[in-house]
Amino acid sequence: MLDGLRAAARRNSDDKALRALIRACKRLLSERAEANSVAIAAELVQAYAQLPEAQRPKLFDALASDFSPDPQTVLAAATAYAQAPTARHLVKLSQVAEPPRQELLRRINRAPGGTACLIGMRRDLLTLLPSRPELLALEADFLHLLSSWFNPGFLRLEKVDWQSPAQLLEQLIQHEAVHAIDGWDDLRRRLQPDRRCYAFFHPQLPGEPLIFVEVALLPDMPAAIAPLIDKKSTPQERNSFKVAVFYSISNCQPGLRGVSLGNFLIKHVATALQRELPKLKRFCTLSPIPGLMDWLLKKPDFEALPGLKKPQLARLQAAHALLLHSCGQDLAGLQQQSADRPLEDPVQQALLSLCAAFMIHQTHSPGGDPVARFHLDNGARLERLNPAGNLARKGLRQSAGLMVNYLYDLAEVENRHERFTLGEVVHARAVAALL
Amino acid sequence: MLDGLRAAARRNSDDKALRALIRACKRLLSERAEANSVAIAAELVQAYAQLPEAQRPKLFDALASDFSPDPQTVLAAATAYAQAPTARHLVKLSQVAEPPRQELLRRINRAPGGTACLIGMRRDLLTLLPSRPELLALEADFLHLLSSWFNPGFLRLEKVDWQSPAQLLEQLIQHEAVHAIDGWDDLRRRLQPDRRCYAFFHPQLPGEPLIFVEVALLPDMPAAIAPLIDKKSTPQERNSFKVAVFYSISNCQPGLRGVSLGNFLIKHVATALQRELPKLKRFCTLSPIPGLMDWLLKKPDFEALPGLKKPQLARLQAAHALLLHSCGQDLAGLQQQSADRPLEDPVQQALLSLCAAFMIHQTHSPGGDPVARFHLDNGARLERLNPAGNLARKGLRQSAGLMVNYLYDLAEVENRHERFTLGEVVHARAVAALL
Amino acid sequence: MLDGLRAAARRNSDDKALRALIRACKRLLSERAEANSVAIAAELVQAYAQLPEAQRPKLFDALASDFSPDPQTVLAAATAYAQAPTARHLVKLSQVAEPPRQELLRRINRAPGGTACLIGMRRDLLTLLPSRPELLALEADFLHLLSSWFNPGFLRLEKVDWQSPAQLLEQLIQHEAVHAIDGWDDLRRRLQPDRRCYAFFHPQLPGEPLIFVEVALLPDMPAAIAPLIDKKSTPQERNSFKVAVFYSISNCQPGLRGVSLGNFLIKHVATALQRELPKLKRFCTLSPIPGLMDWLLKKPDFEALPGLKKPQLARLQAAHALLLHSCGQDLAGLQQQSADRPLEDPVQQALLSLCAAFMIHQTHSPGGDPVARFHLDNGARLERLNPAGNLARKGLRQSAGLMVNYLYDLAEVENRHERFTLGEVVHARAVAALL
Amino acid sequence: MLDGLRAAARRNSDDKALRALIRACKRLLSERAEANSVAIAAELVQAYAQLPEAQRPKLFDALASDFSPDPQTVLAAATAYAQAPTARHLVKLSQVAEPPRQELLRRINRAPGGTACLIGMRRDLLTLLPSRPELLALEADFLHLLSSWFNPGFLRLEKVDWQSPAQLLEQLIQHEAVHAIDGWDDLRRRLQPDRRCYAFFHPQLPGEPLIFVEVALLPDMPAAIAPLIDKKSTPQERNSFKVAVFYSISNCQPGLRGVSLGNFLIKHVATALQRELPKLKRFCTLSPIPGLMDWLLKKPDFEALPGLKKPQLARLQAAHALLLHSCGQDLAGLQQQSADRPLEDPVQQALLSLCAAFMIHQTHSPGGDPVARFHLDNGARLERLNPAGNLARKGLRQSAGLMVNYLYDLAEVENRHERFTLGEVVHARAVAALL
Repeated sequence: MLDGLRAAARRNSDDKALRALIRACKRLLSERAEANSVAIAAELVQAYAQLPEAQRPKLFDALASDFSPDPQTVLAAATAYAQAPTARHLVKLSQVAEPPRQELLRRINRAPGGTACLIGMRRDLLTLLPSRPELLALEADFLHLLSSWFNPGFLRLEKVDWQSPAQLLEQLIQHEAVHAIDGWDDLRRRLQPDRRCYAFFHPQLPGEPLIFVEVALLPDMPAAIAPLIDKKSTPQERNSFKVAVFYSISNCQPGLRGVSLGNFLIKHVATALQRELPKLKRFCTLSPIPGLMDWLLKKPDFEALPGLKKPQLARLQAAHALLLHSCGQDLAGLQQQSADRPLEDPVQQALLSLCAAFMIHQTHSPGGDPVARFHLDNGARLERLNPAGNLARKGLRQSAGLMVNYLYDLAEVENRHERFTLGEVVHARAVAALL
Repeated sequence: MLDGLRAAARRNSDDKALRALIRACKRLLSERAEANSVAIAAELVQAYAQLPEAQRPKLFDALASDFSPDPQTVLAAATAYAQAPTARHLVKLSQVAEPPRQELLRRINRAPGGTACLIGMRRDLLTLLPSRPELLALEADFLHLLSSWFNPGFLRLEKVDWQSPAQLLEQLIQHEAVHAIDGWDDLRRRLQPDRRCYAFFHPQLPGEPLIFVEVALLPDMPAAIAPLIDKKSTPQERNSFKVAVFYSISNCQPGLRGVSLGNFLIKHVATALQRELPKLKRFCTLSPIPGLMDWLLKKPDFEALPGLKKPQLARLQAAHALLLHSCGQDLAGLQQQSADRPLEDPVQQALLSLCAAFMIHQTHSPGGDPVARFHLDNGARLERLNPAGNLARKGLRQSAGLMVNYLYDLAEVENRHERFTLGEVVHARAVAALL
Repeated sequence: MLDGLRAAARRNSDDKALRALIRACKRLLSERAEANSVAIAAELVQAYAQLPEAQRPKLFDALASDFSPDPQTVLAAATAYAQAPTARHLVKLSQVAEPPRQELLRRINRAPGGTACLIGMRRDLLTLLPSRPELLALEADFLHLLSSWFNPGFLRLEKVDWQSPAQLLEQLIQHEAVHAIDGWDDLRRRLQPDRRCYAFFHPQLPGEPLIFVEVALLPDMPAAIAPLIDKKSTPQERNSFKVAVFYSISNCQPGLRGVSLGNFLIKHVATALQRELPKLKRFCTLSPIPGLMDWLLKKPDFEALPGLKKPQLARLQAAHALLLHSCGQDLAGLQQQSADRPLEDPVQQALLSLCAAFMIHQTHSPGGDPVARFHLDNGARLERLNPAGNLARKGLRQSAGLMVNYLYDLAEVENRHERFTLGEVVHARAVAALL
Repeated sequence: MLDGLRAAARRNSDDKALRALIRACKRLLSERAEANSVAIAAELVQAYAQLPEAQRPKLFDALASDFSPDPQTVLAAATAYAQAPTARHLVKLSQVAEPPRQELLRRINRAPGGTACLIGMRRDLLTLLPSRPELLALEADFLHLLSSWFNPGFLRLEKVDWQSPAQLLEQLIQHEAVHAIDGWDDLRRRLQPDRRCYAFFHPQLPGEPLIFVEVALLPDMPAAIAPLIDKKSTPQERNSFKVAVFYSISNCQPGLRGVSLGNFLIKHVATALQRELPKLKRFCTLSPIPGLMDWLLKKPDFEALPGLKKPQLARLQAAHALLLHSCGQDLAGLQQQSADRPLEDPVQQALLSLCAAFMIHQTHSPGGDPVARFHLDNGARLERLNPAGNLARKGLRQSAGLMVNYLYDLAEVENRHERFTLGEVVHARAVAALL
């Protein structure tokens, strides 16, 4: 019973803390706060850090309900603007249509640590969003402002290497999401002169990478990941660098999800490398295909694929039958291969055909590959499919070992991006030939 | 005639450049540009730099007319939101009510040099504004975004001293707007340990101060400016510092007019000084009163002053009569005093009374002193009026030599600001006693 | 036979390289080289880096024999100076008595990388020295110049922490000579706010620590090493720091052996910590006693110990007998204890008595403890002996687990150092009481 | 009489200070000081700063007399070494022959500010030297150590430009010794991209340039100084740079006189410029001829010039007669020319002939030109004589307006320096043709 009393007391005190926080938000937006806003914002930043996790949804509810524009006021301004679209009416409309919480967030941002606090709030908000659609407009305000502040013009591209602070390098080990870094020795190899790492930083978050990309400098476009991340490999000479390969890109800030960073990063890095190493001829990726096996295991309906010709359809169905036959009717068997027990050649060919179909005809539809969508939308071209490119457990599970190269040609990204937005998947002829 | 042809040709080519620039703006906003936006923005930045001055108004016209929200779309969204104020309706409303040119400006900001370009555009726009009210909404968009980006959370406070780059110091000489800096020797004196200078910088504009404040560290609150800016004065010892005096604050970026900087700067500096020199007891200004003589020369209607009591009114009128009498009926005579020919004591007293009335009862009305309004709104208190505080030409012309101290008490600024917004002029008793 | 030919050819080419290098040395010293000395020195630096290891002794022979002062010339100058000790005779004497190779080394030092080259040469020379006493004068010239250049006035003290470059931190792991660092996690713990690391750097060797010291900030003088280097221990609060403990000091540059660095480092660090944390009351070490067990196992001749009184002698002999008895006559048994199997109390007491005798009466003689000699000569006081201070293998082997605290009192170091040089071992009364 | 007493009292206290300082020197050298030497050195540095100027000679006397090697000890060591030149005897000899004050200076150098103190001491010493030859050996010890410490390997070459701290730039204005800098506007012009300034710094004297050189980047080798230092000239484009002209080199530290800096500086800068601007074709100077008019006015004895052929001698005598005739027998008249009143052509030709003789045949003898000696000894070639190269007062006074270009060809400096040391003045054919 004592425990119950204690819990009640804590709840009570938590409720108080929440109400105080909401009051502080209102005060920060008030006229009175003008002359002292940085100090109030700093209190608010601290209060959020101490708010118990269970109280956060209530705070977000309050921000969603109490800090929205007034519907009637907006309607009146919109009506006036529709009747006479003058500058004065527009100014009025802009003022009343913008949710007041945007100004609140801007004022929180005035505090030391304000930016980090807002990113943390959004991270917390994003975890709630799936079950709380009523927070959608609040989320949109966060995204709107963070996108404005994490504008690539405000970001600093920095090379990360073995001279970087341990504090920073530690974060790479922690956040690498594609090919895990196996401790400091592995990391050191990935920062030698023929392997590069670049990250975006924001002046308000010094020492904290927002996103980073790992690059291998090679003589040729690579077909497999293992040699690129072999921590015992010998660094290659500068003279041999012809191709820059983006082999991993990882976000470090969950609270910045949806803020465009990766696409800018790849182009900034390509430009920087081109300047440093004018002999580089190509920029490409060596990428996973996380969606392939899911698609295959769900027994794809080839007939529903848009833009497929009859003979292609027939060949795909035959390939699928061959795969099934080779695995005793369970495609999960494809995930069991290894360097010692490779797929037989016809089976591998059938797999490549199906993958080509998946990439070219499924990407624009639900179930399409998200990595493909990222790079193609970013103006890259689907360049080559590589059998047995990644025989590690994750690679086998995702795509039966297949990997893909996307090609970045800076002169073509605008054109290719547009073609992608119009529904095309720009690809090399060799990929089409696999169908 | 040949000249005419040439001029026509140039006009023709200028028109072409303008149309290309507007097209580039539309392209930058298009879906297609997504994958290449930094490059397009960079072109736009360069194109604006080369646009002939005469073409700028036309560009602003285009930005004002072609990049506004569509009235009917906004009205529909506002109506839907008024009928059902859901998150989804609000998101939609926010999207369609924000002028598309805000996104355009954000995308320009992605380019290297983008921020500087936008500040330059706004500077140009501000010179046009008085005669072009239809550009008001465009101007509001600029101010809205620049205020968000030049948030004090994003600014860096830096001490400027004799170790600073000459490139930076040169800008102080150029922009000092209150007490002109008479060359490098004068500047050097103003950067000795008992004189300080602090400036705000933005990460995107390295080496370019946005605003700076000059501070004198003294044993007492000063009554006159000359000793503070005497370039031959001997620097005082650190132990003697009891009062920090803000004696000059100047903006360096006309394109940031209206973005709150000065109020944050004063408080940041006060906080930084307090930390460095815990023995500092007071933070105050020694400020000009630029509006006083204008007000006096226009023969103020004392009876219209709000909140004045009868006996005060009588005393003011007597004071005014005394002044007129002392100058042979032309108050401009007050602007002729000097250290050798000071005002006679009763005349000086009469002047102080009138100044106290001006500060306490006129500040909230048109014709009130702008410097008073800035500091009082910023939470300061009107502390002391100083006769013969500035006998330099400008000081005599503006205020017959009078200067004023405003007092900053960080624990009181919020409260005092609020009182000011409610119509009060917070002042020391001694000032009231002058009435 | 072919192999023989090849080896002969290689020897031939190596000899050529050596002769070329010696010629380059002579050229660098020549008048002609004046105008081009940096370039010649740079060639020499590179040539030494490529010289096969087997050729180094021959190079050192040449430097020892061909670049010494001419005996007759020196004798003439010394005679003239003895007959008339004028300034002019002294200048002449200084010129001819200094070995010309000192000027050679100074000129090599002009090249980029020259300093590192000279340190490398001395490292190589030191390995040869034991078997080649004729290189002694050459070694003395190296030491003379390096001591002049690695003067503490030219060194930079820097705090090393988790913000330091990985490249630098890696060298700590590699060079820690007292309590090995077990990987990056261990290192991270040793760089938390309650553990410090400071190193000396030379401007010519950026990023390369010369020597570093590890410090623990604690509430009390510690008696055992394990808690200090426990990588899972929780960092303590700044408020609790009363004692700074130097628990490890390691050189990183074998080529700087004999150049005074450690004594300056300890005092610099103590001064820096005192300034940062005025509440620190004491500076001490927690040090190993590497010479104790060697001394005990060699059956010390107690009667030969200087300054021992009769009753003390008797007690020491009894203590020794007790130890022998407790171990079955083999003192190596003392090295087998552990936390679970501690020494019995009387045995531990006997061991402490013997240790006290070793420290107080043996330090000035051969076989005395080198660590004791370093700290006592450096002006520290022998403060406390700690039983079971280090039960790790190395601690048991060196000193049967005993550790010692030396106390640094900056106001006393000059006095204590002098007493040490006069033959005393300054110690706390409690240590003497153990006898 | 009171004044007399006071002066006596002051003298007394000054004497005391001096004696204390000398005692501190002896203490610093003592064994006892080992453990506390940095602190003692720091006291000594402070004591010297406070020593009254009149006491300095006495301090230098003490350093000269009390800290020299003992003649008999040196003689004994030299005798032993002469009898058996072993390593051990040499080590002993080196120890006793080096004046103990060198170790004293090295220990002073351990203190913060020690290096600056020693440079200041030598500056003071150098002013005394002309009248005090007995201080010669002391001076030699200072020079010996400073040369070892201000080794070019320890110096940092830095570009100085408009981004440099005002504190540093101020020193350029103050120390420019060749073509005075007329305030900050003049300085700014000399730091534009087509004018460069480079300086050497020592890590122990941050922010204090040791020596600096000013460079003009031009399309052609210049014949006159005025356009190079015209503060209103327009900066030229990078593409036009073909020649780098060293037009001024100035020392900032009188206490480093005689330490080789200028020759290293010129070559470092030439190398750095070559790397930055590979299109640069030539490196040369535009130099004054400070000794010319002095030589001419003293009526040179042409017959005594070494290496002059008969016909040349005749022509020189004729030229001299012509000059005398043109000036009414007073060559000082040559110093009166101006742009408006140039010398008549035959007179100018006669002057050039005499100058060529002065440069080629007098440089190696007393009365030769010191600037010529510096550059020729440094490996440059006498390239061209320029009439009316400097019509400013100083230029007319020194050399009747003549200036000279020396050419630096990095591949030739070693060879040319050697030829100069063998007595030759390496010159272009065109200069010889003037004879």
